[in-house]
Amino acid sequence: MSSHSIDSARLLGRIRMLGDIGRDVDGRLSRLAASDAEKLGRDQFVTWIADAGLEVAVDRIGNIFGIWRACGITDEKPVILGSHIDTVIDAGIYDGCYGVLSALEVIQTLKEDGFVPSRPIVVAAFTNEEGVRYAPDMMGSLVYAGGLAVETALATVGTDGTILGGELGRIGYAGPHEPGFLSPHAYIELHIEQGPVLERESITIGAVESVQGISWQRVTVEGDANHAGTTPISMRRDAGHAAARVITFLRDRAKNSNSPTVATVGCISFEPNAINVIPSRATLTVDLRDPDEERLRQAEAALVKFLDAISQEEHVEVSVERLARFEPVRFDQRIVAKIEKAAKDRGLTSRRMTSGAGHDAQMIARIAPAAMIFVPSIAGISHNPKERTNDEHLIAGVNVLLDVVGELAREVTW
Amino acid sequence: MSSHSIDSARLLGRIRMLGDIGRDVDGRLSRLAASDAEKLGRDQFVTWIADAGLEVAVDRIGNIFGIWRACGITDEKPVILGSHIDTVIDAGIYDGCYGVLSALEVIQTLKEDGFVPSRPIVVAAFTNEEGVRYAPDMMGSLVYAGGLAVETALATVGTDGTILGGELGRIGYAGPHEPGFLSPHAYIELHIEQGPVLERESITIGAVESVQGISWQRVTVEGDANHAGTTPISMRRDAGHAAARVITFLRDRAKNSNSPTVATVGCISFEPNAINVIPSRATLTVDLRDPDEERLRQAEAALVKFLDAISQEEHVEVSVERLARFEPVRFDQRIVAKIEKAAKDRGLTSRRMTSGAGHDAQMIARIAPAAMIFVPSIAGISHNPKERTNDEHLIAGVNVLLDVVGELAREVTW
Repeated sequence: MSSHSIDSARLLGRIRMLGDIGRDVDGRLSRLAASDAEKLGRDQFVTWIADAGLEVAVDRIGNIFGIWRACGITDEKPVILGSHIDTVIDAGIYDGCYGVLSALEVIQTLKEDGFVPSRPIVVAAFTNEEGVRYAPDMMGSLVYAGGLAVETALATVGTDGTILGGELGRIGYAGPHEPGFLSPHAYIELHIEQGPVLERESITIGAVESVQGISWQRVTVEGDANHAGTTPISMRRDAGHAAARVITFLRDRAKNSNSPTVATVGCISFEPNAINVIPSRATLTVDLRDPDEERLRQAEAALVKFLDAISQEEHVEVSVERLARFEPVRFDQRIVAKIEKAAKDRGLTSRRMTSGAGHDAQMIARIAPAAMIFVPSIAGISHNPKERTNDEHLIAGVNVLLDVVGELAREVTW
Repeated sequence: MSSHSIDSARLLGRIRMLGDIGRDVDGRLSRLAASDAEKLGRDQFVTWIADAGLEVAVDRIGNIFGIWRACGITDEKPVILGSHIDTVIDAGIYDGCYGVLSALEVIQTLKEDGFVPSRPIVVAAFTNEEGVRYAPDMMGSLVYAGGLAVETALATVGTDGTILGGELGRIGYAGPHEPGFLSPHAYIELHIEQGPVLERESITIGAVESVQGISWQRVTVEGDANHAGTTPISMRRDAGHAAARVITFLRDRAKNSNSPTVATVGCISFEPNAINVIPSRATLTVDLRDPDEERLRQAEAALVKFLDAISQEEHVEVSVERLARFEPVRFDQRIVAKIEKAAKDRGLTSRRMTSGAGHDAQMIARIAPAAMIFVPSIAGISHNPKERTNDEHLIAGVNVLLDVVGELAREVTW
């Protein structure tokens, strides 16, 4: 086991410095992918990479790499560690940035401590993980893993009408390297949990062995707009009431299923949306997640069956549009075991767990053994200025990462 | 019984002519109160009043009156018949206009046929019945009945930022008369049903004996915005799910109550309204109606009780804002009986009924004996370009009005 430890003050200082870049006049942090604000964050990150003596490389989709090739190490597949530095609107300072800056800290610590790796170690910051300005999210890692053609990704039109490729060129981050130019020996990503499980169980380290499958659908219900005062209940075709039944059905099923299935209706709208008119149309989104593909399919099938029933019972027409679908991802068991062992050796509590959110690691898992490390999020809050993790937990996570990377980087074969 | 009958072709022609005034480039009819489009409708109506030899009078809130004072008749209280000519957005041509133009047609028929009334007969078109541009609705008749000060009403700011008083002046309908300047002997309003009851029962004439009480409330539910993927169901404070339970509760209660209570949720919104975020806030409107005040109060009390329960069960905060409250209105039984008798004498089917919608008649009922006549709405559709009533039913309704007005106008005492 390594006896190194990272420089906590340097890491925490950098997290706070990066978190101050891209704030608006009201102090809200928003570094949307390839924006002017994000350019400032990228520039700061590149400066830190260069100052640490790493080689800076940018690929065509704007992913940034800081490469440490120790003396005599050239062709070996690198250990890559990273995450993203773009943010949502009105974000916290840890989501993504914690993983990227910890990766840099780990490499810098190893380098400064005279660690002798058998392969390159690379910090990566992937473009547009959040997907707020350009869809889909996790775009940079998806392109890197070959799941989306770089030309297609660069042609994406943003919510503000801009083209991603144009914006990357404008901010100086349309790099020369082909995505995938570094073939990882292993990939490991440190991240805040963004959920309440670790805090609730007083556990410091999550050894993330899988990412939930995600099913996103939009349900549209069509009924009849009629006068709220003159139409007897028995004669109504109330799209809003049918929509409400979909919401309570999903919740009741998830609650009673005795499984980790989660179901969320986050968006809704009624038409004509007038106080005295029965809704003729209701649109709602359904977010279903489960770590198990079979159970996720069962949840989707149960929804289809319920929508059929409701269409009969409420005399409404129901249509469904699929918005996104990702199967669950299983991470590399060998790396997960290393994370557990590293935590134990440091005297830290740990548990295996599933990631409820999507992460770049699930994309890179397509081309390399990969896993993630989680640290607790206070009250499970994320994508919010209140997002917070105790310094003690931040430092514990990085030291576990340090130990695992140390092991992986010494491996000559897998 | 009168043996007169109205001039069907003249009436139907005027309804269609007025229905062509105020259409936009897409052919949608929108004559919002005191707008340029409504000015054109008012001007046409005033021309018809004057052409019929009636005296035109406009009061300070813009209500238009066409007064027939037969020879020697001056100080007697008038029989007033009317409705409104403002419309909703993308309206049909019958709502309100049918009552106003029928009133004019009745007076013109009586006049032309040499009818000798004992008191003046007046057609009234009340300002801003729909309440789309300026709140509250039924404003002109409310002011006329003394329920709202004219200065307050004139100062109302519209959805487009305009002031009603300014707009009335601009379009030339800020008249000199004090609202209430004509004290009615009786008021009677002919209107399309705007509901499905008469058509469903194949009845031609509704003798409207009451107007439902209305309770409008806005319910706001506050929970926690959390990540849809990482927050277990048991740890959620889901404002959207709580809102859905309110909707299904109201529907189930109305359906199972074995009473005419109706409950409608017409408007809803979630915040932050993102597919992968549990709603932190849900806002919905509740429209409760019942012809019986005691039952309406019971419905309101049941909602309060349910909101208390849901606030506990779902760990959310619930607040309620009252938007409008009108007690049920009982119309004058003597006039209602005259309507039933007139229908019978004309060989028309009729039934006593409650109005589900609000009408100017309920305001004027505060200061005079009042009642309404309904004719069937095809499929119950109103506030919609598909609003339609068969010509045969339109004509039947006006002839019943003619007979009832003939009787009321001959009365020397009540």
